[in-house]
Amino acid sequence: MSTLTTSATYALLQRYHTTRKQTVKLCEPLEPEDTVVQPIIDVSPPKWHMAHTSWFFETFILVPHLPNYKLFHESYSYLFNSYYNSVGSRVQRDQRSTLTRPPLRDIYSYRNHVDTHITQLLEHISDEDLLNILPVLELGLQHEQQHQELLVTDIKYILSTNPLLPAYKPQSNGKVIEKATEARFLEIPGGVYKIGYTGNDFCFDNELGVHEVLVNDFEIMNRLVTNGEYLAFMEDGGYHDFRHWLDEGFAMVNCDKLEAPLYWVKQDDEWHRFTMHGLQKVNLNEPVTHISFYEANAYATWAGKHLLTEFEWEAASQVYPPQSGNFVESEHLEPIAADPAKDSLQQMYGNLWEWTYSAYHPYPGFTKAPGAIGEYNGKFMINQMVLRGGSCATPENHIRTTYRNFFHPDKRWQYTGIRLANKR
Amino acid sequence: MSTLTTSATYALLQRYHTTRKQTVKLCEPLEPEDTVVQPIIDVSPPKWHMAHTSWFFETFILVPHLPNYKLFHESYSYLFNSYYNSVGSRVQRDQRSTLTRPPLRDIYSYRNHVDTHITQLLEHISDEDLLNILPVLELGLQHEQQHQELLVTDIKYILSTNPLLPAYKPQSNGKVIEKATEARFLEIPGGVYKIGYTGNDFCFDNELGVHEVLVNDFEIMNRLVTNGEYLAFMEDGGYHDFRHWLDEGFAMVNCDKLEAPLYWVKQDDEWHRFTMHGLQKVNLNEPVTHISFYEANAYATWAGKHLLTEFEWEAASQVYPPQSGNFVESEHLEPIAADPAKDSLQQMYGNLWEWTYSAYHPYPGFTKAPGAIGEYNGKFMINQMVLRGGSCATPENHIRTTYRNFFHPDKRWQYTGIRLANKR
Amino acid sequence: MSTLTTSATYALLQRYHTTRKQTVKLCEPLEPEDTVVQPIIDVSPPKWHMAHTSWFFETFILVPHLPNYKLFHESYSYLFNSYYNSVGSRVQRDQRSTLTRPPLRDIYSYRNHVDTHITQLLEHISDEDLLNILPVLELGLQHEQQHQELLVTDIKYILSTNPLLPAYKPQSNGKVIEKATEARFLEIPGGVYKIGYTGNDFCFDNELGVHEVLVNDFEIMNRLVTNGEYLAFMEDGGYHDFRHWLDEGFAMVNCDKLEAPLYWVKQDDEWHRFTMHGLQKVNLNEPVTHISFYEANAYATWAGKHLLTEFEWEAASQVYPPQSGNFVESEHLEPIAADPAKDSLQQMYGNLWEWTYSAYHPYPGFTKAPGAIGEYNGKFMINQMVLRGGSCATPENHIRTTYRNFFHPDKRWQYTGIRLANKR
Amino acid sequence: MSTLTTSATYALLQRYHTTRKQTVKLCEPLEPEDTVVQPIIDVSPPKWHMAHTSWFFETFILVPHLPNYKLFHESYSYLFNSYYNSVGSRVQRDQRSTLTRPPLRDIYSYRNHVDTHITQLLEHISDEDLLNILPVLELGLQHEQQHQELLVTDIKYILSTNPLLPAYKPQSNGKVIEKATEARFLEIPGGVYKIGYTGNDFCFDNELGVHEVLVNDFEIMNRLVTNGEYLAFMEDGGYHDFRHWLDEGFAMVNCDKLEAPLYWVKQDDEWHRFTMHGLQKVNLNEPVTHISFYEANAYATWAGKHLLTEFEWEAASQVYPPQSGNFVESEHLEPIAADPAKDSLQQMYGNLWEWTYSAYHPYPGFTKAPGAIGEYNGKFMINQMVLRGGSCATPENHIRTTYRNFFHPDKRWQYTGIRLANKR
Repeated sequence: MSTLTTSATYALLQRYHTTRKQTVKLCEPLEPEDTVVQPIIDVSPPKWHMAHTSWFFETFILVPHLPNYKLFHESYSYLFNSYYNSVGSRVQRDQRSTLTRPPLRDIYSYRNHVDTHITQLLEHISDEDLLNILPVLELGLQHEQQHQELLVTDIKYILSTNPLLPAYKPQSNGKVIEKATEARFLEIPGGVYKIGYTGNDFCFDNELGVHEVLVNDFEIMNRLVTNGEYLAFMEDGGYHDFRHWLDEGFAMVNCDKLEAPLYWVKQDDEWHRFTMHGLQKVNLNEPVTHISFYEANAYATWAGKHLLTEFEWEAASQVYPPQSGNFVESEHLEPIAADPAKDSLQQMYGNLWEWTYSAYHPYPGFTKAPGAIGEYNGKFMINQMVLRGGSCATPENHIRTTYRNFFHPDKRWQYTGIRLANKR
Repeated sequence: MSTLTTSATYALLQRYHTTRKQTVKLCEPLEPEDTVVQPIIDVSPPKWHMAHTSWFFETFILVPHLPNYKLFHESYSYLFNSYYNSVGSRVQRDQRSTLTRPPLRDIYSYRNHVDTHITQLLEHISDEDLLNILPVLELGLQHEQQHQELLVTDIKYILSTNPLLPAYKPQSNGKVIEKATEARFLEIPGGVYKIGYTGNDFCFDNELGVHEVLVNDFEIMNRLVTNGEYLAFMEDGGYHDFRHWLDEGFAMVNCDKLEAPLYWVKQDDEWHRFTMHGLQKVNLNEPVTHISFYEANAYATWAGKHLLTEFEWEAASQVYPPQSGNFVESEHLEPIAADPAKDSLQQMYGNLWEWTYSAYHPYPGFTKAPGAIGEYNGKFMINQMVLRGGSCATPENHIRTTYRNFFHPDKRWQYTGIRLANKR
Repeated sequence: MSTLTTSATYALLQRYHTTRKQTVKLCEPLEPEDTVVQPIIDVSPPKWHMAHTSWFFETFILVPHLPNYKLFHESYSYLFNSYYNSVGSRVQRDQRSTLTRPPLRDIYSYRNHVDTHITQLLEHISDEDLLNILPVLELGLQHEQQHQELLVTDIKYILSTNPLLPAYKPQSNGKVIEKATEARFLEIPGGVYKIGYTGNDFCFDNELGVHEVLVNDFEIMNRLVTNGEYLAFMEDGGYHDFRHWLDEGFAMVNCDKLEAPLYWVKQDDEWHRFTMHGLQKVNLNEPVTHISFYEANAYATWAGKHLLTEFEWEAASQVYPPQSGNFVESEHLEPIAADPAKDSLQQMYGNLWEWTYSAYHPYPGFTKAPGAIGEYNGKFMINQMVLRGGSCATPENHIRTTYRNFFHPDKRWQYTGIRLANKR
Repeated sequence: MSTLTTSATYALLQRYHTTRKQTVKLCEPLEPEDTVVQPIIDVSPPKWHMAHTSWFFETFILVPHLPNYKLFHESYSYLFNSYYNSVGSRVQRDQRSTLTRPPLRDIYSYRNHVDTHITQLLEHISDEDLLNILPVLELGLQHEQQHQELLVTDIKYILSTNPLLPAYKPQSNGKVIEKATEARFLEIPGGVYKIGYTGNDFCFDNELGVHEVLVNDFEIMNRLVTNGEYLAFMEDGGYHDFRHWLDEGFAMVNCDKLEAPLYWVKQDDEWHRFTMHGLQKVNLNEPVTHISFYEANAYATWAGKHLLTEFEWEAASQVYPPQSGNFVESEHLEPIAADPAKDSLQQMYGNLWEWTYSAYHPYPGFTKAPGAIGEYNGKFMINQMVLRGGSCATPENHIRTTYRNFFHPDKRWQYTGIRLANKR
């Protein structure tokens, strides 16, 4: 093994183990029973997330690249494949709660087994082979980070359905901000912007196909919309006035009798929300979250503004490159109010994924990779809306300004938020 | 405390603790994750069964009768009430898998807490008070036994949905019988039979209202229908010929694409069935089980026979009083072939609940008890069919010839079986 | 052709034509568009009823018995078969509104075609052949009468869903009764009663299997429960108190948000009901109708009484043989108040089908006829409750005291009513 | 009244009456029963279309602008409002088949009543008032044309559900083309294109917000994809290979067991399709139609090509302005093969609406009109895809190159088609 590789693989192994440990850490506060249920189809059992991320490394790295590798268990490929048709049949998505076995301790053994063999593989790999597996290994780590984010949102949902409303962790690490900064609109000049990832590090295939987009002049709100601002919309009868809503959104509101964001409950005539720290009074300064695209857009319409397109968002991020944010590393796991001490554009990174009024479609040059990896993104490019910027459940080194997240417009269990634009 | 009571309460306490321990024993082979899921609405999570049976004693005995009793946990009444409207609101039946908390260990503490206080109450109770609570205490024990039976059937269903098909216990205690006894029909003379419970021990309210029923002469099959006999029906195209079926049964068969009893799977062109001991080849001599009323009746029609009414079954049990049976105490938990060494009427007790062609309706003198206990049986007297005789999941001292079990005609997850009648 | 037959067939032909004309007459007030829709699966399009009753005669009489008979249209057997699997495939029950073609005028031609050929067949039939087809011809007429009754109830439902609430016929022939007779309970002595049809005329197969049933002493209400009495139940919170209800009934009430019988609407704070004569104020003296078995039973429980079993009803009809009633011939098509001038047992015949607390099961000796006719009744003997006595939509010569009608316990679109019993 | 106006209003009146008569003409081949049913929620009863288009003129023109206008019928506003919340409550969309009354003849009277009063209004209107109502009158005519197109597609669907498969008109006016022109790809140069309507005539609000879009170089197929080409996809197992499909499309294909376009049936091992002229053998030269966006995109993926974006389509129409097309005026009502005699870009207008891979979203400057008219388009701008170019059911003077039609990606009952692009 060359010296060059030794140092590179050492760093890679470090990152591998750091990432893998984070998944386990996120599950530490859970009971075994918490890790097996699936209250809605969008939410996967935490045990499944832990196994599926290991299955990814086993299937795409160990099986093809580690000589004489023995599967941890023959049936795990069937049990823990998510949606890769190329890899074979699998437990249907809505049947994941049938997996009461293998028990949690077996999944931890599975994780250790995979980690041991990845370590072994990397410690003895040739330069050439390393270059060969690097893209998939990188994808495996990015994939694990995506599932860490889902773990947080899925755990929150699971706990919220429990009548006892248990906190994930009782104490919060949240910085207390007395009063969020005032809302302002910042000008972004129109013009031709280059859209998509142009760097040399990792990006997903859906960020490729760099292309130029003509963007009109517009203004962007300096921070996310707050609970206080959203409450004004609610108290103005926003949920009952069809004029603010897309038709399918208003149908959902009426069918599900929606009156507030997900996790909001009125107690003793006061709004509370279920958080990772238990049930708490709604803090009016914090960004409003767990709203669907429909609610985000209705709010914008009510406010006489618009949501941004994903191209406007990316253009703004070129004008004001975002620096830091409230990511999963803060261990707060809830959004934090905008800092009045900071001027300029805030909260573009972290806190909440921002709904854009852009459908999740392929960029002009988009092509699917051959084989199973090609199923990663492309087949979901219909009926979903793009979200940008990451959330308080996102790992800091996972985000980019070109990152395209996507959900159906009715989904509310993610850490979603609203940023407004002024257009002409 | 009088000496008389001391001995009576001692025996009662013995029975109380024996019964309570059996519930815990049945759950021992489970993982915590097994105890929280609810794959279909009929199946309750085992953890819920363990808590609910304790809630029954707490709510109906300890709270009203033990001075200064402190609830184990305020919210448990909401969490573990099953269907007693009188007692207040509760977790909806289809939401029982939301109860990932309280964790399993808390439920064990709850059980101990209740047991300790019941012991304390009984050890210091006066004669008068004991007489007062005896009926409810007895009901609580019978109730716990009913849930033990459900525990077995629900655990079987939960394990069966797992792609790994794990055995509840790998080894079986089943007596091996090479060849089931030949089928014969025994005459039961017609006449006026007294129906309902006339003894001095416990019975459920639905067995009261003793009344006379005119029964015609008929003949009863000496044992249950076997897998081999049922397979002949299947191989004759029984599931595809509408002439054998009630219309709603045939609709179910077509809609759900049924081809065989529940838990049957064809592997390498041979029929297997999922049992409490894992997947096994179908034994042709054993009684066929996990069939709906529709299948039982279609089989009877195909065979040119009938199902019995519940009155005919009870009349036959007066002519040939059943002795022993394959109950939960055998720890086999699956039906056993009829013994060729025994003549006369077999398998009336234990093995499998026998579908009758009698709707579960009130007997003439039926009245509901006042209060919550009145919700025990009466409100279910519609759209269900009566089953008689107990099964391999029934505690031996729980059954009587007058016992009326009841399920909807499409249910298959119980240990149900078929006995034929010849009528004129 | 013998003289004897000539006169017999003449009478039969008379009856045939009278019956057939009545079907057409019932449809006269309809628009073509009224005759094609199917708002719920229980309700068939009137055009379909008109065609299906003709198909019955064509399929079971003309095709097998009239030499050289040519089908009116090849596809009609597929289009207008209801549920006879033996006769071949058919338009699925919930797809009957697809039959916009053949248009109404073709169906009238179809009816004429069938009538002409039946006439031709009967005019030239030999004695022997007549005896041969008589049972099926009789069944065809009874079948047509059953569909006349369904026509009335289905037309009422179709018109009721129209926002204009059009009357079937604006004027009523109803006798105005100022005040219904007082409710009284009449004693029926217990004993062994012969149940089932013993006469020499027509009856359905489900009335056969005459057998003896032991009935206890009981008392029967002298008339049907009135709107006024039912309103007292409603105003006492009857629809909101679980104690009166079977569990599945209370679930239906809550799921469908039921507050009153079908067709009742509150306008300007006063209860109205949609009738065949348009929307009218609820008349408190008239019998309450369009209630499910669940509502009937909840009312009885609230009133501290019971519904009768079908055997008690038949026993009472032997003690007090019913004479006349408000049948379809009165052309009122709604129930009429009980006559205060009449003493004794009233309204057993006509007005409203009376829900009994008896499941629709086979009598002891029940056997299905071979072939398609065998599908007439037997295959529906599950999950349905027996109703007795006929309604204001029943032809007078169609009813018998042994007649067993049957519907699922949640059905409300039929002319159903409540009669109470006092039991001990 | 000024002379100027006289001639302008005369022309307008001519157009008004021509348009209105076309609606009636389209319904002439129908039976009254055809005009009332609603087999799926997307399809409205033809009678409803006829009434609703009249309601539009009555509500938005006659009521506000004709002094002393008396409503034809008070309830019609409730009955025939489609989706305008601003105008009040209405019959729910899935309840339109309840409107068996008013009968068809009343709807014709309604149309005449509205036409008479519109004539009266226009004959006496002042210049100023005319200018005032012109935009709404124009919208009313465009609206009526949209419903004419829906009438054709809805009638086709209604007839197709009838087991008799009746033809709308037996004879076809279709030009017979022996062999469709060969497929070729034509270059469209990239660059900044002006998108949206810039003319002075009518356009819908969703075409406004003219803006520039950067389009890459691409190639466009010279005609629509044919049945023959699509059949090659089918025969290559296209419906069973997940790699060609968007995930939600493949789920639909499996759930609905799709094997071919809507209206295709295999008879005697040969593909037929239901057309407006009855069931016919599939003509391989004709454009494939009645396919969902999912099928269109799967075909494109299989062929190694792409669908166009709506901007590319509009750019191509600027390079090759479309001239004529197969519109509703040809009275063929089915697509026609591409003419081998014609070179260059064909079939951009008429024949089939072409699915684009563009979500139906607002253009940058989009604003909703105030009041009910503002509900026309904007509230549907989610989850739908844009289609371009019109179909054989579109009136010729209704189409423009900037026209944006839109449907959900799973819809198949419209005349939809596929055009491919080559991209780099």
